[in-house]
Amino acid sequence: MNRKMVFYMLGNIIKLEAVLMAPAVVCSLIYRDNGLIPFLITIAVALILGFTLTLLNKPKDKTIFAREGFVIVALAWVALSAIGALPFVISGEIPSYTDAFFETVSGFTTTGASILKDVEAMSKGLLFWRSFTHWIGGMGVLVLMMAIVPNDSGRTIHIMRAEMPGPIVGKLVPRVKSTAKILYLIYIVMTAIQVILLLCGDMSLFDSLLHTFGTAGTGGFGTKADSVAGYSPYIQWVIVVFMFLFGINFNLYYLLLIRKAKAVFKSEELFVYISIVAVSIVAITIDIYPIYKDLSEAVRASAFQVVTIITTTGFATADFNLWPTLSKGILFLLMFSGACAGSTAGGLKVSRIILLFRHIRSNLKHMLHSRSVDTLRFEGKTVDNATATNVTAYFALYFLCFSAMFIILCIADPFDLETNITAVSACFNNVGPGFGQVGPASNFAEFSTLSKWTLSAGMLFGRLEILPMILLFAPTVWIKNKSFSRK
Amino acid sequence: MNRKMVFYMLGNIIKLEAVLMAPAVVCSLIYRDNGLIPFLITIAVALILGFTLTLLNKPKDKTIFAREGFVIVALAWVALSAIGALPFVISGEIPSYTDAFFETVSGFTTTGASILKDVEAMSKGLLFWRSFTHWIGGMGVLVLMMAIVPNDSGRTIHIMRAEMPGPIVGKLVPRVKSTAKILYLIYIVMTAIQVILLLCGDMSLFDSLLHTFGTAGTGGFGTKADSVAGYSPYIQWVIVVFMFLFGINFNLYYLLLIRKAKAVFKSEELFVYISIVAVSIVAITIDIYPIYKDLSEAVRASAFQVVTIITTTGFATADFNLWPTLSKGILFLLMFSGACAGSTAGGLKVSRIILLFRHIRSNLKHMLHSRSVDTLRFEGKTVDNATATNVTAYFALYFLCFSAMFIILCIADPFDLETNITAVSACFNNVGPGFGQVGPASNFAEFSTLSKWTLSAGMLFGRLEILPMILLFAPTVWIKNKSFSRK
Repeated sequence: MNRKMVFYMLGNIIKLEAVLMAPAVVCSLIYRDNGLIPFLITIAVALILGFTLTLLNKPKDKTIFAREGFVIVALAWVALSAIGALPFVISGEIPSYTDAFFETVSGFTTTGASILKDVEAMSKGLLFWRSFTHWIGGMGVLVLMMAIVPNDSGRTIHIMRAEMPGPIVGKLVPRVKSTAKILYLIYIVMTAIQVILLLCGDMSLFDSLLHTFGTAGTGGFGTKADSVAGYSPYIQWVIVVFMFLFGINFNLYYLLLIRKAKAVFKSEELFVYISIVAVSIVAITIDIYPIYKDLSEAVRASAFQVVTIITTTGFATADFNLWPTLSKGILFLLMFSGACAGSTAGGLKVSRIILLFRHIRSNLKHMLHSRSVDTLRFEGKTVDNATATNVTAYFALYFLCFSAMFIILCIADPFDLETNITAVSACFNNVGPGFGQVGPASNFAEFSTLSKWTLSAGMLFGRLEILPMILLFAPTVWIKNKSFSRK
Repeated sequence: MNRKMVFYMLGNIIKLEAVLMAPAVVCSLIYRDNGLIPFLITIAVALILGFTLTLLNKPKDKTIFAREGFVIVALAWVALSAIGALPFVISGEIPSYTDAFFETVSGFTTTGASILKDVEAMSKGLLFWRSFTHWIGGMGVLVLMMAIVPNDSGRTIHIMRAEMPGPIVGKLVPRVKSTAKILYLIYIVMTAIQVILLLCGDMSLFDSLLHTFGTAGTGGFGTKADSVAGYSPYIQWVIVVFMFLFGINFNLYYLLLIRKAKAVFKSEELFVYISIVAVSIVAITIDIYPIYKDLSEAVRASAFQVVTIITTTGFATADFNLWPTLSKGILFLLMFSGACAGSTAGGLKVSRIILLFRHIRSNLKHMLHSRSVDTLRFEGKTVDNATATNVTAYFALYFLCFSAMFIILCIADPFDLETNITAVSACFNNVGPGFGQVGPASNFAEFSTLSKWTLSAGMLFGRLEILPMILLFAPTVWIKNKSFSRK
């Protein structure tokens, strides 16, 4: 492994985090709250650590392979969360480091699960940082770095592939740097439009910004104890629409930009995504209508909760814990599906589920008519055998990780099975709220320390799609081995 | 498809069922209960139907391919259950056909989920038939047919493969008929030993027989409202040991018979199976010790419940619904694992889980070092790529079926998520009891008709490992198609 390069990149990421904390500093200055000193201390720590790493690890050889890409991404996300948690602890507003780390991981991974019992009592600067982590984590911090720093290292596509969610990650344009730039440009423009639309609905600038960060990253941290329930129907609809939009593969927006609208309409993943959302909204509306007794309210509540769960955002306008079983059942399954690959959403991703169905179908066919050779097709292209096998292997790996975390929670905490299963599901899929004791009206504060660390790891596993995190524990990555070191 | 052959075999199976009802008739005669007439009517119906099918479908061509094997097995199991339910309905002891069908499917699939509210009020003859279905379904009725009727059809291995659980089904000896005979011989000898051991514990002959049927088929139907809780520790331990033994791959017993004990000790599946059972028993004993305050009682309760769940039998000596979360969590996961392939147990099977782990590992390796070619090995043999892919595809298919059934239950019934999830899990894995409203102290009577049919289908899907049942719905199987018809 090219270890010098790994630590060099890690140092750069940590320096970038110091820079990304600047807006929060400005916010603390404006509101004159007690976030200022903690932010400055953290920035100093980050800069010292970052420069130490880069200066000590000047790489002669800048080549990166798949393995380096995975390890850089995994280490970067752990380091970002570890350092990003410092302001909360230093300010004393989240005194326990476990809690602060959980909250920060939840931010970067755009989960939105919180241990805060009184979010409205927090300093504005800290709230800003908490929501801003959603925005950074949504599109990916390494993608951001590739977009802004001079692209001097070879094969950075491996890093992008490790950080971007979904089974197939491609470049929009031949150069990785340009692809990263385009993605961030689309991201920034959409963010700006949503902020303006929220401002039009008489939301304050601070709240508009923070809710947009939460929407754009499909995170779900808000500024109010009742999440978005207290806002006007207009605001709620704006958020529904933008959650839905941020759940679409960003490649499609690029295709729209270069006027290839036809290709967009042909996207199978988009079609299935829209269908799942539409069917779920209709089914839940019918199911909850007797509770709301007002069609527009029932539709809004249904649409909001369906979109917030499938995009794994986690905002809430209703406590779906109190809904009938069918609605809860649908939402439970949507947690696993997630939205489109290449979006900011978590979960298994719609494209993976489509591929899974096709793979099963072609397998069945093959078993019956062993002569038939059935090539797997997706989005008009042939899917090679390796990708298809990876998708099913990912699915299996996903459920094994799920089971392991579930058992740890059962060991560490006395909650009921529903709470434990949905807590794992909410964190691993980066959704945020679950059912039972971790429903939208409550939070994760009551969990034990062991469970909080497990769930923090679960959020990272979910966001980075398992492989990079597992690699951190693989001995072959760290042991010097001639036969592997230059592959 | 060779439709004549399919219906010819189906007719033979139905005739066989009439013969298999004879012991129940004898039982009804001895106890002079009101099962006699219903049994005689059912036997008449079965014989008429069976002979009609065989006479109308004399096949000229007796060849069977994979497709025919799957379809014969699926149709046979549905027909057996449909006819096997008649005595319950005709006698009036289970007036609803839905309930009777559920109970019979639960019997044949060795699930053990019951809708009976008062099992002790049933006629002895009907109770005998109910438990005897476990014994028939455990080793497989088509395997039985192959063992006893003249082996005049080609390639019956396809039928055996479709009915026997597990990812890899092989013949013990070159001839399918001899393999089937050996399997049933082992099965009968083990059954006889257990009956004798239970009789030694002062259990009545009737109870000994029925509990042995429930153990041998890993089914779980008993004769008492409190299952096995009321019996002596000796009886409970005998049942624990035999549940465990019936959860082992029968091939290993054959190897023991032909004095290849070395190969048995080398079995990876057996080793993992024993390890899972041992670790679970220890963990749960520690967890429930504070409740029982008596070590021998805690160990017995723990061992009984672990073995009953992992072998998917479903007898109970304790209401594990009242146990701490860790114990419930472990039992919940054991429901999915199941015992060894080639045994009478349900679930995913230990060998499939081992293969899954290996497949994931080799996939990870391949992703990192694309040059490495890692062959999958299991039980000392190389696993071909198709088998490995089938295992992961099966896993994915398994969870898709699970989700579909879960949603239907949510639509049809107002129970909580825990009840619905574990009801599906208990039926699909052929376990029997679940948690919540379907715990060991309660039953499935409260479910709606739609849910009962869904769960009945789920039990058949689980027992036959999905594929045969799905094929029944595939149009290519039924539509005449030149290109497929003679493949």
